[in-house]
Amino acid sequence: MIIMGIDPGTARIGYGIIEKTGGKLSYSDCGLIMPSGDNLRKRLRSLEIKLDSLIKKTKPNKAGVEKLFFSKNKKTAMDVAHARGIIINTLEKSGVEIIELSPLEVKLGVTGYGNASKKAVSGMVSKILGVSTDNIIDDATDALAIAITTAYTKQVE
Amino acid sequence: MIIMGIDPGTARIGYGIIEKTGGKLSYSDCGLIMPSGDNLRKRLRSLEIKLDSLIKKTKPNKAGVEKLFFSKNKKTAMDVAHARGIIINTLEKSGVEIIELSPLEVKLGVTGYGNASKKAVSGMVSKILGVSTDNIIDDATDALAIAITTAYTKQVE
Repeated sequence: MIIMGIDPGTARIGYGIIEKTGGKLSYSDCGLIMPSGDNLRKRLRSLEIKLDSLIKKTKPNKAGVEKLFFSKNKKTAMDVAHARGIIINTLEKSGVEIIELSPLEVKLGVTGYGNASKKAVSGMVSKILGVSTDNIIDDATDALAIAITTAYTKQVE
Repeated sequence: MIIMGIDPGTARIGYGIIEKTGGKLSYSDCGLIMPSGDNLRKRLRSLEIKLDSLIKKTKPNKAGVEKLFFSKNKKTAMDVAHARGIIINTLEKSGVEIIELSPLEVKLGVTGYGNASKKAVSGMVSKILGVSTDNIIDDATDALAIAITTAYTKQVE
């Protein structure tokens, strides 16, 4: 089973792809979907195109998308929520099972501890997937953590 | 020129369609796009399908979409922002020129007064379009007001 994790952030959106074979998880790919520029219309359009092509390439069976918790900057929060709408809809259209997870659930899922530091999460991602996360950007590491938690979570209707 | 107005609200989304011929505006259609149910995934998907079919049917040259200003209920604000992302992207994909307007700009555009009441806005919509708004639901009347203001606004890149 192929599992995608998506971390919708303010400046960029991280993704991670893992594979689950039997009970074992392994690293497959990760990176950023980063619609650039200030024009919301073009950024949303570009996000849909990039995510759609990533889905077609990696063919995930399920995808975890982190929930948003905001925040002091309402303008930024709104922009990320616009993008998250596109993410959810693009996955739904492609028939990918969607799991929505809170940051707490992801930390718990990966480290067993809800207050885990970024470093602790990164360390467990590295350990679980058997890959060094030293050179992976935070947003993509977080997306891998989301994918790991997603692997063990069922969709609620 | 065909102009669409969209009012992204919490429970439902109003739309209005008007026509601009020379300097004159006339009423064409209005109503609700109301993705029902509690499941965000299905609501977003249904919103895209309904809006896309409305665009294909009415063929608007430009569309005004009201900006979001929030709010006490962050959860609701986030859901509406998800939906607004879909609205913007669906219009952009169809090649419709998008105008983003604040509630203040719409009130100013329709009544000349930024603090106008809902009743004053509705009265001016009725007067400008030559149609009674008595039996039109608020969200659709607001969408017509957005369309009227859009008729006189240019897109900023």
